[in-house]
Amino acid sequence: MQQKLILITNDDSINSNGISALVHIAKQYGEVVVVAPDKAQSGMGHAITINHPLRLSPSYIFGDIKAFSCSGTPVDCVKLAIYEVLHRKPDLLLSGINHGENTSTNVLYSGTMSAAIEGAMEGIPSIGFSLADYAHDADFTQGSEWISKIIKKVLDSNLPLNTCLNVNIPKLKKQEIKGTRICKQAHAFWSDRFDKRLDQFGNPYYWLTGDFTEVDKREDTDLAVLKEGYISIVPTHFDLTNHAVIGNLKSFNL
Amino acid sequence: MQQKLILITNDDSINSNGISALVHIAKQYGEVVVVAPDKAQSGMGHAITINHPLRLSPSYIFGDIKAFSCSGTPVDCVKLAIYEVLHRKPDLLLSGINHGENTSTNVLYSGTMSAAIEGAMEGIPSIGFSLADYAHDADFTQGSEWISKIIKKVLDSNLPLNTCLNVNIPKLKKQEIKGTRICKQAHAFWSDRFDKRLDQFGNPYYWLTGDFTEVDKREDTDLAVLKEGYISIVPTHFDLTNHAVIGNLKSFNL
Repeated sequence: MQQKLILITNDDSINSNGISALVHIAKQYGEVVVVAPDKAQSGMGHAITINHPLRLSPSYIFGDIKAFSCSGTPVDCVKLAIYEVLHRKPDLLLSGINHGENTSTNVLYSGTMSAAIEGAMEGIPSIGFSLADYAHDADFTQGSEWISKIIKKVLDSNLPLNTCLNVNIPKLKKQEIKGTRICKQAHAFWSDRFDKRLDQFGNPYYWLTGDFTEVDKREDTDLAVLKEGYISIVPTHFDLTNHAVIGNLKSFNL
Repeated sequence: MQQKLILITNDDSINSNGISALVHIAKQYGEVVVVAPDKAQSGMGHAITINHPLRLSPSYIFGDIKAFSCSGTPVDCVKLAIYEVLHRKPDLLLSGINHGENTSTNVLYSGTMSAAIEGAMEGIPSIGFSLADYAHDADFTQGSEWISKIIKKVLDSNLPLNTCLNVNIPKLKKQEIKGTRICKQAHAFWSDRFDKRLDQFGNPYYWLTGDFTEVDKREDTDLAVLKEGYISIVPTHFDLTNHAVIGNLKSFNL
């Protein structure tokens, strides 16, 4: 049987610990190729670079694993990987492991998940992995066996078409992780604030900050199951139509 | 009755013809405040700026309309507008009029629509408007009466919570526009290519290009109704869960 081709990207940059952990796990399942941003691209969402050109540079940080750093966004990385590096669609696309969780509405801001969604748009089985730990010394290895199992299952099965998986791993020791739960994106939002300061010329600048505000009381959401000690798995697609309100809206006579 | 507060943003920049046309229409319905990018931000999707600070500068290009240009993305503009300019949520958020259509999966890449989706996340009635004409001399006035009508209806009604409208206007003369249709996001994708060239030092650079590939045969999609000469209106939300496959995925034993 031909070896599986596995594309790996992320949004924390090619130099991050999370992508290194993911490469280490994935290489037992096929030929891994990495195309990842050359700098942090957190919060870039589904951004693509259309107004200026992109650079792609070979990287040797993963030893004998073929790797490139890219000057663009995570979605740029996926597009460049398919069309200029691999010249075909990989059998699997993995994104992450993100440094910090991508639950709830964070999926919209997340470069990690946008790369996986781009994979789904291309018809590639795709998974975004995130670890619910923002600490500098976050331990990406505690969930390794689960990540490994999920990758194997997805390679052996057929994911629903145009649907990727959003996998969040709780900040727990290996033996404390209770298992996995298929669940829904929670409804939550950021109560934003800006840190407003004056620069050396007396002109104001604004730096985004905020508090994550959970409003969802359902028990089958990613936020809820993660808190219970489970790995959350949300089947994620790119149809943003709110189908449930179409009938209602027709009565608006817009 | 207190005057309505209407926030306007876009992704083509504060200097574009489309936002000027939208300001002109909206000002008859309330107090308009503009916070829009200081440069083109097309393709920025739901990106936010978290790794460096933002600037906000007063602009006088709309005469007596309060306006600010912002160094960030369209979603940054929405956040800054609410928390640093208006200090409250507006009664309505309008984004556009985008230069070029935002049908189908383009909604994910679109800064125009991401600004409207951010509005929906904040619980603000929000509408993204796009004109299906990329020409430099695109005429943003032909759909004015329809845009005006939609704005008025949304102000008079209650949009479904956390749902914004994605409105695309066909490239037609006023009298040729057949009306509006509430419809679904079409399934289509970009067949990407990169224009690969060598710079003056012999190093390659890559510039994204591609062809839009329509695969959806349904008649009630934004692409389909737009082609028929209707204004497409898609109720758009931010729950990316593919609810239909949750049961199926549970059987995967991931």
